[in-house]
Amino acid sequence: MTTIGFIGLGIMGGPMAANLLAAGHTVLGHDTQQAAAERLVTAGGKYVDSVAAATAADVVITMLPDSPQVEEVVLGPGGVLEHAEPGLLLIDMSTIRPDTSVAVGAAAAARGVRALDAPVSGGEKGAIDGVLSIMVGGDVHAFDAARPVFEVLGKTIVHVGPSGAGQTVKAANQLVVGGIYALVAEAIVLLEASGVDPGPGLDVLAGGLAGSRILELKRKSMVARDFAPGFRIDLHHKDMGIALAAAREAGVALPMTGLTAQLIAAARAQGHGSLDHSALLKVLETVSGKAAS
Amino acid sequence: MTTIGFIGLGIMGGPMAANLLAAGHTVLGHDTQQAAAERLVTAGGKYVDSVAAATAADVVITMLPDSPQVEEVVLGPGGVLEHAEPGLLLIDMSTIRPDTSVAVGAAAAARGVRALDAPVSGGEKGAIDGVLSIMVGGDVHAFDAARPVFEVLGKTIVHVGPSGAGQTVKAANQLVVGGIYALVAEAIVLLEASGVDPGPGLDVLAGGLAGSRILELKRKSMVARDFAPGFRIDLHHKDMGIALAAAREAGVALPMTGLTAQLIAAARAQGHGSLDHSALLKVLETVSGKAAS
Amino acid sequence: MTTIGFIGLGIMGGPMAANLLAAGHTVLGHDTQQAAAERLVTAGGKYVDSVAAATAADVVITMLPDSPQVEEVVLGPGGVLEHAEPGLLLIDMSTIRPDTSVAVGAAAAARGVRALDAPVSGGEKGAIDGVLSIMVGGDVHAFDAARPVFEVLGKTIVHVGPSGAGQTVKAANQLVVGGIYALVAEAIVLLEASGVDPGPGLDVLAGGLAGSRILELKRKSMVARDFAPGFRIDLHHKDMGIALAAAREAGVALPMTGLTAQLIAAARAQGHGSLDHSALLKVLETVSGKAAS
Amino acid sequence: MTTIGFIGLGIMGGPMAANLLAAGHTVLGHDTQQAAAERLVTAGGKYVDSVAAATAADVVITMLPDSPQVEEVVLGPGGVLEHAEPGLLLIDMSTIRPDTSVAVGAAAAARGVRALDAPVSGGEKGAIDGVLSIMVGGDVHAFDAARPVFEVLGKTIVHVGPSGAGQTVKAANQLVVGGIYALVAEAIVLLEASGVDPGPGLDVLAGGLAGSRILELKRKSMVARDFAPGFRIDLHHKDMGIALAAAREAGVALPMTGLTAQLIAAARAQGHGSLDHSALLKVLETVSGKAAS
Repeated sequence: MTTIGFIGLGIMGGPMAANLLAAGHTVLGHDTQQAAAERLVTAGGKYVDSVAAATAADVVITMLPDSPQVEEVVLGPGGVLEHAEPGLLLIDMSTIRPDTSVAVGAAAAARGVRALDAPVSGGEKGAIDGVLSIMVGGDVHAFDAARPVFEVLGKTIVHVGPSGAGQTVKAANQLVVGGIYALVAEAIVLLEASGVDPGPGLDVLAGGLAGSRILELKRKSMVARDFAPGFRIDLHHKDMGIALAAAREAGVALPMTGLTAQLIAAARAQGHGSLDHSALLKVLETVSGKAAS
Repeated sequence: MTTIGFIGLGIMGGPMAANLLAAGHTVLGHDTQQAAAERLVTAGGKYVDSVAAATAADVVITMLPDSPQVEEVVLGPGGVLEHAEPGLLLIDMSTIRPDTSVAVGAAAAARGVRALDAPVSGGEKGAIDGVLSIMVGGDVHAFDAARPVFEVLGKTIVHVGPSGAGQTVKAANQLVVGGIYALVAEAIVLLEASGVDPGPGLDVLAGGLAGSRILELKRKSMVARDFAPGFRIDLHHKDMGIALAAAREAGVALPMTGLTAQLIAAARAQGHGSLDHSALLKVLETVSGKAAS
Repeated sequence: MTTIGFIGLGIMGGPMAANLLAAGHTVLGHDTQQAAAERLVTAGGKYVDSVAAATAADVVITMLPDSPQVEEVVLGPGGVLEHAEPGLLLIDMSTIRPDTSVAVGAAAAARGVRALDAPVSGGEKGAIDGVLSIMVGGDVHAFDAARPVFEVLGKTIVHVGPSGAGQTVKAANQLVVGGIYALVAEAIVLLEASGVDPGPGLDVLAGGLAGSRILELKRKSMVARDFAPGFRIDLHHKDMGIALAAAREAGVALPMTGLTAQLIAAARAQGHGSLDHSALLKVLETVSGKAAS
Repeated sequence: MTTIGFIGLGIMGGPMAANLLAAGHTVLGHDTQQAAAERLVTAGGKYVDSVAAATAADVVITMLPDSPQVEEVVLGPGGVLEHAEPGLLLIDMSTIRPDTSVAVGAAAAARGVRALDAPVSGGEKGAIDGVLSIMVGGDVHAFDAARPVFEVLGKTIVHVGPSGAGQTVKAANQLVVGGIYALVAEAIVLLEASGVDPGPGLDVLAGGLAGSRILELKRKSMVARDFAPGFRIDLHHKDMGIALAAAREAGVALPMTGLTAQLIAAARAQGHGSLDHSALLKVLETVSGKAAS
């Protein structure tokens, strides 16, 4: 099997590494948190105390919070590229800015390292169950080489284009998800303020052209004001920042995305950062003077 | 079987009346257009030349363009309520303002007429195939009485609340549909401007939390810039006006809906009123200086 | 001097009629409120108990809440046009939809009546002091004939175009005013949340390219959260509805106006309808989770 | 007089340095462009070929394009702080992110250097005429020490708070300016599409509560579609990015600003980056399908 360096063993990276171990791979894991190290060892992995040590592998996966961490771990002094042998396959599965992924891809190529940007959707549950959606940017041969690893981690695995394309698709995904939550929230506010029970009303919407995965999975919990995460507002707030940065980089204007980003910022400003992103409903309630539950 | 007066035999009303005839009902149809009258007769119906004559029935269905036409035909001089016998079942299937439906319901009740607001979604194709979604407001006993008629016309038939509730749910439906089109359009603009083929990218979105009926049905035609209707921008523009009026009446503020309404108004202002509502993509392209195809 | 019928003697119409009386004109005033009638008589006017009686004049001024009232009083049965002698000069100073003014103008012309739409800005204080801004649409000869009356009521008096143009300019005025309030509110929220005293900060803005009449007049009261009207949110909410209807009628899309309208609707939904429109600041505070004072 | 190091001698910095020379100060100027160096020498200044050499002064002024350049020149290797003697007064007059100014202020204090953030408004003309508005953050004693320098460069000079406050006020200024341009553009689009001559209409707005410096200075050129800069869309686009970053940092949501930022991004995407920011009118015209002139 393959020796995989895995840097970033948090809520997502931890279970992903565990799945790779369960599939028989050797994992050299690194994280700055002690608890993450212990979980890895319990799952059968080998903890290493530096990025350099994690780079002594066939494949290196990074799963980090945001663009600056990826820049530091991959490009920075003592980072992956400083220690990488030519031929290494570097898979960054963090959700970061597309232009950072392009920069990582170019720097990797200059060192003879094959790099892929491969952000995921599906959340902690998808990571644990190994059913993530993985959207991959980079060279198609590198993608083919990485496929056995991806198949352990995800169910929908799509090569979407060159370096950075995975991140762009993830950004597009997040702006659509955020926007649909805001729209469903406005529908609920309108129905309730009109004295209409949102239950059967949303059932109709879910069955027609207004239907969406979000209505399917979340309409009951939203109406019940159950906002246990799931995917936290704080993370979606970060992702909307990436979507707007991607739009800026691409030279396009996205008015709905611009407004959605502010509504998600409002959710955070109102103190709901650790709730599920469906808590956007609380913002739309507040706007209309409805007591948030 | 039942004798049904049917007022408004246009793109939607025509095939709906034909389905009622095919199911064995007697239809007394009325419309101001000669061609509509002829289609009805061809389908086996009886054309009557006044609202009064169409009201001599067990059930009267109205399928009209907008609130003022319903007010005129139902409430106006020579209208349905002026000629209705107590016990008549009046089903308004037009998409109109909820407060107009409430007014119709109250005026009907004062005359001993049972009224339902029962707007539909599913478009011309749904009307022809008899598979409309029907969202019904009004008394639940009247709903039960109307059910055999609804079952000829639609597949998803839901009683959503008291008088006006059907229209409110339809308004909520249309604001969500319009908003999702705008979001998908922004996703396409972002992907294309970033040099990412939108085909596989949207496939990933469709398979995850960003998934929606619209992505399922329309992503290929949108990417191909095929905007043959379908449901026209002009009609969606009318419906966004209803959604904003419903919000105003309910005393709530809907920022995403407010912006979506302006984007759909832009589609109309740019001359795309007779295209499918997915042509909202053209607006988002124009905003970013992309040559609309 | 001139005999003037004055219909609508409320917060604005009352002091305007008083100013006309003080200038030596004869005023035949009508209103549905007893208190308004009494104020008129106290000021030296003659109260008449019907629209018809108020129409027995050289000039009729209407100052009414909204489009439906103008339609009823001018176009309806027993209304001004039913009783008007040819040659009457009808000046509607209400703020209503431009298309209603166009309809009034056309109906008046058909009766030989010269009609002007002449909405005002400047509020109750401007009405009392006789320094309103008056924006006038209609025939320029009728405008010249009305000028002596306007000069009693206002300071800035501009003929802006044909029938309806006065209302369009008023709509443009209100969308700009509403939008600037929202922008100033966002500036205050940003400054305060950043720990910057908004006093000197707004002084700088007021002195530069960001300067506006609103910053000049209202920055101190906004920072002090003094929202005594002034011009009420409820009225501005009505006016934003007119602005959006005017845009719809003109076939244009106004995204900033669409969003501003929802923010003002939010102010009303939050219960601030009777506060000054500068209370839009409360909405922006709520959005960001700041305790409204 | 004072010896002033001046780093960044572009469109703004060049004439500012010239004014300081004219006032009798000694200027050690540095820039990466040869032409800028030559202009400085012509004006009587001394060109130095490194940041280090420019730091050998009583006061160092930086006037640079954006946050990364300030970070590099001040904080980077070979930068101002590396070479500064304790007691140096560092005045950054660039428009950058408030949090970068805070970081610069803290790093400077750690080296015994007094730092002010002092962004300006008033444009190239204000710089040439020495009448800039200067909004200053930082220690008030440092502000007092810098005042003689500021008085050469500007007319309105206000200490607005601690380190970073100058940038926050500038961000607030730019979001208000951008928003008012968008609102005035919507007013013009509405008036013209309604067949109303915008000239007298905007005159009325300028004279009332809708009045603003922008209406006063720019309404005629906007109606004439004269978009010669002035202040370029590209720069305002950069500044809206700073405003949104400042809001993010402050933990607030600014919906009008979010939408304004996208409209300005649209102006850039449509190819108008080098026009005056009043060219936002072209975006609003395009939205409504009006042929941009």
